[in-house]
Amino acid sequence: MRLKVYADRMSEPSRAVVIFCKINGIDFEEIKVDLAKRQQYSPEFKELNPMSKVPAIVDGKFNLFESHAILIYLACAFPGVADHWYVIAHQFIPDYVPCYMKLLKICVISWMQDNMILTSFHISRYPNDLFKRAKIHSVLDWHHSNLRYGAVKFVQNVALGPALGLPLNPEAAALGEKILSAALDKIESFWLKGNGKFLLGSNQPSIADLSLFCEIMQLEVVDEKDRTRILGPHKKVQQWIENTKNATRPHFDEVHKILFKVKERLQQQQSVAASSDNTSSTKTTLHSKM
Amino acid sequence: MRLKVYADRMSEPSRAVVIFCKINGIDFEEIKVDLAKRQQYSPEFKELNPMSKVPAIVDGKFNLFESHAILIYLACAFPGVADHWYVIAHQFIPDYVPCYMKLLKICVISWMQDNMILTSFHISRYPNDLFKRAKIHSVLDWHHSNLRYGAVKFVQNVALGPALGLPLNPEAAALGEKILSAALDKIESFWLKGNGKFLLGSNQPSIADLSLFCEIMQLEVVDEKDRTRILGPHKKVQQWIENTKNATRPHFDEVHKILFKVKERLQQQQSVAASSDNTSSTKTTLHSKM
Repeated sequence: MRLKVYADRMSEPSRAVVIFCKINGIDFEEIKVDLAKRQQYSPEFKELNPMSKVPAIVDGKFNLFESHAILIYLACAFPGVADHWYVIAHQFIPDYVPCYMKLLKICVISWMQDNMILTSFHISRYPNDLFKRAKIHSVLDWHHSNLRYGAVKFVQNVALGPALGLPLNPEAAALGEKILSAALDKIESFWLKGNGKFLLGSNQPSIADLSLFCEIMQLEVVDEKDRTRILGPHKKVQQWIENTKNATRPHFDEVHKILFKVKERLQQQQSVAASSDNTSSTKTTLHSKM
Repeated sequence: MRLKVYADRMSEPSRAVVIFCKINGIDFEEIKVDLAKRQQYSPEFKELNPMSKVPAIVDGKFNLFESHAILIYLACAFPGVADHWYVIAHQFIPDYVPCYMKLLKICVISWMQDNMILTSFHISRYPNDLFKRAKIHSVLDWHHSNLRYGAVKFVQNVALGPALGLPLNPEAAALGEKILSAALDKIESFWLKGNGKFLLGSNQPSIADLSLFCEIMQLEVVDEKDRTRILGPHKKVQQWIENTKNATRPHFDEVHKILFKVKERLQQQQSVAASSDNTSSTKTTLHSKM
């Protein structure tokens, strides 16, 4: 039975899960839950996720929500997923093995009857992958109350709110920007420290890169000067965004297409509003001179 | 080298990690980072956790922060940890094995030289423990923006704020209570569904129970009528709190001692303030009659 992914590509965590499936060749069916139509509150969807949030998945008889939990599950459950995403495949560890450790890892993936059988054998004391996974968990946990909290608060209150039936709120936007900027500072100075191209000094992306990157991509829909003000001071973050775009192409472009369309529409609306402002301002000026 | 746990028992996630270590017989040193003295901002602590939050751990040369990531790491790194906390030990799975699966798990924990060696061998297709772990991750991820967000916002704004140098804010407290109550509704109706004594229908606690339980325990410091109003409608939550208290005793009592002392002190302050109000009100009344 194919994996089912319930998602709306306007949601950052949905995009992360969809890109993850595509890039890892997971056979899945994407089922749209239209947030603008409030389909996440339908009884059918609430049966899958009573929290009324996307994404959610159904894999056979098993269902799951919360995007970080989903990414970890997919990385563990689908043997074709590349090791760097969650350090799940068992293999010889080339670096950072404390000298007191002896480490042997053999991984054999085979088919038995018509079912996938994952066979693994490992001997370790604090294996390297345990450390790496722990650091990935740490980034993902940090994400919730920092980058995600700030980015969503800012973007909803300067741009996307009305599409979700919420008013724009400059005061909330200012608080969102403060939290978002502090989070970007930490990514720049801590999570991206070292010479690696990705978070935690890695040279290949993990699920943490994918999750945080999709979060930041929502800044595409805000005004250019706002985005420049917020992202401008963070040169390493900008480079990391480019690295992650390149590492996830062509799926990045396809999955983010909807976001770029929304950006275009919002820009048109702004330009219409601006020209209308100019016209009325001209009229006012003329009127005042009469 | 002993595990070091940097914690302040006034912090809910710190309490969860300390209880976890104690209940699982992990040999550790607890190092107090006094939040009231802002020690989390000291250069020494920021070296361990640049986010200036407790808890954080140091295990040999490895350091880690974010309590959920720490709990998962400890469950994986210390072989003595009971299986139910994170479904990490490899063993025969007695239930919920889809009929098409063949499942064999052998776990051997042994010592080699002076180091701990964990040897595991498992063959599985979507093993039961993968499902269970995924559900634990789902609860923990959900916790961040729901129960934790609501509980901290409420408790800081009705009781604890001044101890951290923050003002009490009734408007923020009202919003916190709304989010907290909604989270308790979800625990009552969803996470505690089934006949199990713990979250996810289990009969033994997991790290998710410990984390959410320690969060809710902070309600001890708010006014009795507030706590009754918030917890009163949630009978299953109340029973689950009792179950988790009993499952974590005597460590629960010892680690929460500081919270009960703060509760006592706040109650004394309130009663002094109330009697002072009465006196001044009496005086006012007397004055008005003069």
